[in-house]
Amino acid sequence: MDAEIIAVGSELLTPERMDTNSLFLTKKLNALGIEVRYKTIVGDEPERLAAVLRGAMNRSQLVIVTGGLGPTEDDVNRNVLAEVLGRKLREVPEVRRRIQERFASLGRTMPENNLRQALVPEGADWLPNELGTAAGLWAQQGGATIVLLPGPPAELEGMFEAQCKARLEKLAPKERILTRVYKVVGLPESEVDQRIAPIYKAYQIPVTTILATPGAIEVHLRARAASEREAEAMLNELGDKIELALGDHIFSSHGESLEEVVGMYLVMKHKTVAVAESCTGGLLSERLTRTPGSSNFYAGGAVCYSDDLKTKMAGVPRSLIEENGAVSKPVAQALAEGIRKRAGASIGIGITGVAGPSGGCPEKPVGLVYVALADEARTQVREFRFPGNRERIRYWATQAALEMVRRSLKS
Amino acid sequence: MDAEIIAVGSELLTPERMDTNSLFLTKKLNALGIEVRYKTIVGDEPERLAAVLRGAMNRSQLVIVTGGLGPTEDDVNRNVLAEVLGRKLREVPEVRRRIQERFASLGRTMPENNLRQALVPEGADWLPNELGTAAGLWAQQGGATIVLLPGPPAELEGMFEAQCKARLEKLAPKERILTRVYKVVGLPESEVDQRIAPIYKAYQIPVTTILATPGAIEVHLRARAASEREAEAMLNELGDKIELALGDHIFSSHGESLEEVVGMYLVMKHKTVAVAESCTGGLLSERLTRTPGSSNFYAGGAVCYSDDLKTKMAGVPRSLIEENGAVSKPVAQALAEGIRKRAGASIGIGITGVAGPSGGCPEKPVGLVYVALADEARTQVREFRFPGNRERIRYWATQAALEMVRRSLKS
Repeated sequence: MDAEIIAVGSELLTPERMDTNSLFLTKKLNALGIEVRYKTIVGDEPERLAAVLRGAMNRSQLVIVTGGLGPTEDDVNRNVLAEVLGRKLREVPEVRRRIQERFASLGRTMPENNLRQALVPEGADWLPNELGTAAGLWAQQGGATIVLLPGPPAELEGMFEAQCKARLEKLAPKERILTRVYKVVGLPESEVDQRIAPIYKAYQIPVTTILATPGAIEVHLRARAASEREAEAMLNELGDKIELALGDHIFSSHGESLEEVVGMYLVMKHKTVAVAESCTGGLLSERLTRTPGSSNFYAGGAVCYSDDLKTKMAGVPRSLIEENGAVSKPVAQALAEGIRKRAGASIGIGITGVAGPSGGCPEKPVGLVYVALADEARTQVREFRFPGNRERIRYWATQAALEMVRRSLKS
Repeated sequence: MDAEIIAVGSELLTPERMDTNSLFLTKKLNALGIEVRYKTIVGDEPERLAAVLRGAMNRSQLVIVTGGLGPTEDDVNRNVLAEVLGRKLREVPEVRRRIQERFASLGRTMPENNLRQALVPEGADWLPNELGTAAGLWAQQGGATIVLLPGPPAELEGMFEAQCKARLEKLAPKERILTRVYKVVGLPESEVDQRIAPIYKAYQIPVTTILATPGAIEVHLRARAASEREAEAMLNELGDKIELALGDHIFSSHGESLEEVVGMYLVMKHKTVAVAESCTGGLLSERLTRTPGSSNFYAGGAVCYSDDLKTKMAGVPRSLIEENGAVSKPVAQALAEGIRKRAGASIGIGITGVAGPSGGCPEKPVGLVYVALADEARTQVREFRFPGNRERIRYWATQAALEMVRRSLKS
């Protein structure tokens, strides 16, 4: 079964906004064995939308239209659907009642405008919206199924899960599409490809794609099969070989971020971590504390931009900085050891480097970063030279630090 | 002149990837007075692409196709264009030579595959690529101009600037489209609309749109006029009235982020800031240090998750925490004052709160955050109750803190 998605909204044709609902929908449709073949973005203009909708109904079995169901005159989808289907719009009392109740429960009176949202083309079904006043619509004509969903992501997602999934399961083929994403750290893209190309090229299914993302290489496997079990078995067969080839460079196979994986390891091993960072400006602490429950493994951190604070907050001897410079192996080491002691943590991390764009010099260029990890046994320091701009250098430095923690906990 | 953009690539129809080149292109086209009316995303499938391209040439004067110009068999755009135009592909020696030279300069031999990239439909122009081997294509037929650009953003952007802009300026109308974005903080969306709707509704041009983004409300003005000067004058006329109505709730009118604005104020006033944060886990320090040159105004920070570190790093008296709890006004105040003193900064910020999802209780629910600002004159503390999830609460808390700094520096 082939689907296409039409996102409606003039704001989606400006440089500032883009359609993201289609990512959610694609994921959900794929899980039902439905492929998305086209995505179209069009403004709130009845004639253009009508032409796009007609074209879509001719070439696709399932057409999902998002946005344009609001109460204002800009919101044309309801009327365009009725026109394209050649059916009349009728007010549905049950929808009207639900809209009125929603306003009443918020202690507000309903503007007349909102009654537009109670209009449903003859013969079409309406889909209740638990989070807003815009009902969805579900219509069939000439072999095509057309579904209109509201634009706000929470409303769209809730309505899809509660209303569309079960209906689509009845329509959709028995086939299933499953994907698996391996996230790989510590190997360049070319090296990943060199290691696994001979393996995945022997398989038509799953389809394998390699993507470079900030801080990690991702290997995507995508299997389409007659059943979930069969697709799963295909993923396992190829996946096992890929896991063997990439070994512990794979840090995640279920979508977890590196900081989540590190957090899980820390909790499992009953360890805590503390951070003293300079050029990363708080980013490592921020990433470690993104995860709920991070107070179980994150002890605390210092952002010591100045030499003075390196001494005050992480106990780095002033003489050490004077002798070696703030960006140096010994200072990274002292930051890690100092913050570990100060915070009473099992592991201390120290980061010092030049994030740029200014502040570099021939001996210590932009991109030079030292990361140190201190634990009860020893302190290790690594030197990195990251390419790219300030944002990239900062991100890669935290990625390198997290990877050092992951490796120290695995061994 | 109406344009549409077709992004080609099967990976752009998966849940993991999306077309972002069209944002760059839209911005550049708008600046030339060209509106984008449709965006279509289609896979690397010759038949589907050919149909989409034919449809686009029928309805739009300018069709920009991105991606699909690589050297592999997946890259079908060149062939599809020739087919749709009904013209033959011919190898262009100059393009061939450039590809060979590029490989030679990298010390590599050219695979035979790459010669596909030297093929150009009869009567079409080729566009040199300074950053890769894929030449672009420029063709005209039946009143439509069709431009094929490579998918990698750097190559596409370079080619657009160097090759397409000047050509489009000749084709495009004299009209210009300018936009202005006001970013507003400290007012809910409904209040912003209430204040400015009576003003902007009197104007057909500029078109005004209000968007809620994380941490700020944005007011977009978009003016189309016969010249840049005229469009600018229209933006100024409406913009001045909007600025008056929203006053100093507007923190930016040229796209700057709140942390950039705060950084500029700090530098202008020769002040520095230091941060002691708990529930935001380093995010405030990270935001303040995103900007290049932040060492001129950011003194340092502490991420004090535990009570112990609040005492050790920011000098918060243990008794104060015991009496009031870690999430309290007095502790926020002590964090701000303590870190200010410790870091020798002009301004100290203290943040303590419950980011959730766990850790809340009836008296101190998830979303409760205290933010304190200490300067030479006094310490102010504000209590917030932020809705939403952990990520949102953390972001809003840093937004509130930055806004307090901005206000303290303005007055």
